[in-house]
Amino acid sequence: LHVFSCNSNPVLARQIADHIGVPLGDAVVGKFSDGEIHVRLDESVRGSDVYVIQSTCNPVNQHLMELLVMVDALKRASARTINVVIPYYGYARQDRKTRARDPITSKLVANLIETAGADRIITMDLHATQIQGFFDIPVDHLLGVPILGEYFQQKALDDVVVVSPDHGGVIRARKLAERLGSPIAIIDKRRPEPNVAEVMNIVGDVRGKRAIIIDDIIDTAGTISLAANALLDYGAKEVYACCTHPVFSGPAVERIRDARIKEMVITNTIPLSEEKQLDKIRVLSVAPLIGEAI
Amino acid sequence: LHVFSCNSNPVLARQIADHIGVPLGDAVVGKFSDGEIHVRLDESVRGSDVYVIQSTCNPVNQHLMELLVMVDALKRASARTINVVIPYYGYARQDRKTRARDPITSKLVANLIETAGADRIITMDLHATQIQGFFDIPVDHLLGVPILGEYFQQKALDDVVVVSPDHGGVIRARKLAERLGSPIAIIDKRRPEPNVAEVMNIVGDVRGKRAIIIDDIIDTAGTISLAANALLDYGAKEVYACCTHPVFSGPAVERIRDARIKEMVITNTIPLSEEKQLDKIRVLSVAPLIGEAI
Ligand SMILES: Nc1ncnc2c1ncn2[C@@H]1O[C@H](COP(=O)(O)O)[C@@H](O)[C@H]1O
Ligand SMILES: Nc1ncnc2c1ncn2[C@@H]1O[C@H](COP(=O)(O)O)[C@@H](O)[C@H]1O
Repeated sequence: LHVFSCNSNPVLARQIADHIGVPLGDAVVGKFSDGEIHVRLDESVRGSDVYVIQSTCNPVNQHLMELLVMVDALKRASARTINVVIPYYGYARQDRKTRARDPITSKLVANLIETAGADRIITMDLHATQIQGFFDIPVDHLLGVPILGEYFQQKALDDVVVVSPDHGGVIRARKLAERLGSPIAIIDKRRPEPNVAEVMNIVGDVRGKRAIIIDDIIDTAGTISLAANALLDYGAKEVYACCTHPVFSGPAVERIRDARIKEMVITNTIPLSEEKQLDKIRVLSVAPLIGEAI
Repeated sequence: LHVFSCNSNPVLARQIADHIGVPLGDAVVGKFSDGEIHVRLDESVRGSDVYVIQSTCNPVNQHLMELLVMVDALKRASARTINVVIPYYGYARQDRKTRARDPITSKLVANLIETAGADRIITMDLHATQIQGFFDIPVDHLLGVPILGEYFQQKALDDVVVVSPDHGGVIRARKLAERLGSPIAIIDKRRPEPNVAEVMNIVGDVRGKRAIIIDDIIDTAGTISLAANALLDYGAKEVYACCTHPVFSGPAVERIRDARIKEMVITNTIPLSEEKQLDKIRVLSVAPLIGEAI
């Protein structure tokens, strides 16, 4: 068994290798002067089961291509099976035609990964679980809820309500609520007219409660900070937020800093660069979960 | 017939559309806040023959992904045929295993483009013509030599010798020499021992001649500036250089500026950003050539 890392998340890759108790495979994933990726495997993989760890986070196209070139190299080096571990699967939000003539990039990416030669996918909290069906190879779909749930259980908060920031996230919120033995509430965004700001109504009771918002991806953090305000307006006494994938693009970090959120709990499927670290952000590792799945 | 452009070479795309006499297709190829590409086609392509113009130059992975997402969108929008015009085909130098366990990224890229849904490829001066065989769809392979040759013919230089900078480029040099009615010479690089600088010998007679070095790609311009020195040392009276694909990465522009080269003639398969423009660089357009092929 060999575990190789590309460049998106070397710290997580090392944690996973440590968890399994193997050294990280010896390989260089670099760039030529003109920006083309080159991969060099420095150990034999002939006949072995190989795992490649790579999140397709920003810069997504480069990270995706690193993964594809690595899989190509492993295939041509006669690996027995190539298991691609994608803790964060980029392009997952382009999973359907929301308008005429849209691409379906999630499906394109699935095809690209299969074309390169992957035999099996291990990934976490796909934005749409339908993406599993975009692959014709086995997909192991892991969930962040147990990790996030365990953290909040240890905090032993009382008067908790778990909040889904939209209707798409209710099942995830329900799973966390079951672990915490708490009720759920749902934020119901409505745009009364085109070009009028959204109104956030809350379905369920949050008055006097500690709200824990859970989402799969937090990107620009716009939704989460508005949701926190709405919850406090509706009488919640404290707001926590958590997610599996901290995309944190654009104004995300300032918004989280300024939002009336007591703590933001995330996982390390996407590494948090130093300038994005805040005291109120708490990072949990998915390495044991992925290590067990391998 | 529709012609769409992605973002690598919009000027060339417009020239091609103008040459054919059609407007450029209405589409947006943009980015979300987290760097993911989004493509929006703003006109119907149902049942039409569509051409997409995109060079996979630096940033190569982004330009490649723009192309793939565009092809996916066109396919799902029921285009009749999708013809991909790649004036510069990136990753062409990774066309074989030079060592054990190398990827063959040129072949990977061919597979990716086919997987996305391309029906036909139009490209220019592939670094290895074998890359045509990496595709299972038709490949039209255009050559820069007629354009470069016409330019030098109009200059009506005398005492010309066409020089190939390595043994791989002799056929190209021979084609240019035939057009100019001149002899050829070949630069024969040898490394006497490992870690000793290369020695440039010249096969053929250059004394008192005007040398025109021709290559497919000029990347960091190391070879070309050393070759110019060697030619002058061997008695050439003037050195010109030309290529189809001006990759010009890293120290290329300073090297060209400082090299003892009178004029550097290139094409616009890769756009020359403003900070790379020098008085001695002359750009010829491939738009008429590609326009005719469409
Ligand atoms: N990387 C991205 N950043 C922001 N929005 C996106 C991104 N990818 C897709 N979308 C849009 O997000 C919407 C889908 O999100 P959702 O409704 O949460 O599944 C669609 O309108 C997409 O166009
Ligand atoms: N983008 C690139 N920049 C520099 N060298 C490259 C690049 N892609 C491939 N190569 C190397 O160039 C060599 C092939 O070039 P050639 O012998 O001219 O076909 C191989 O050793 C490759 O590893």
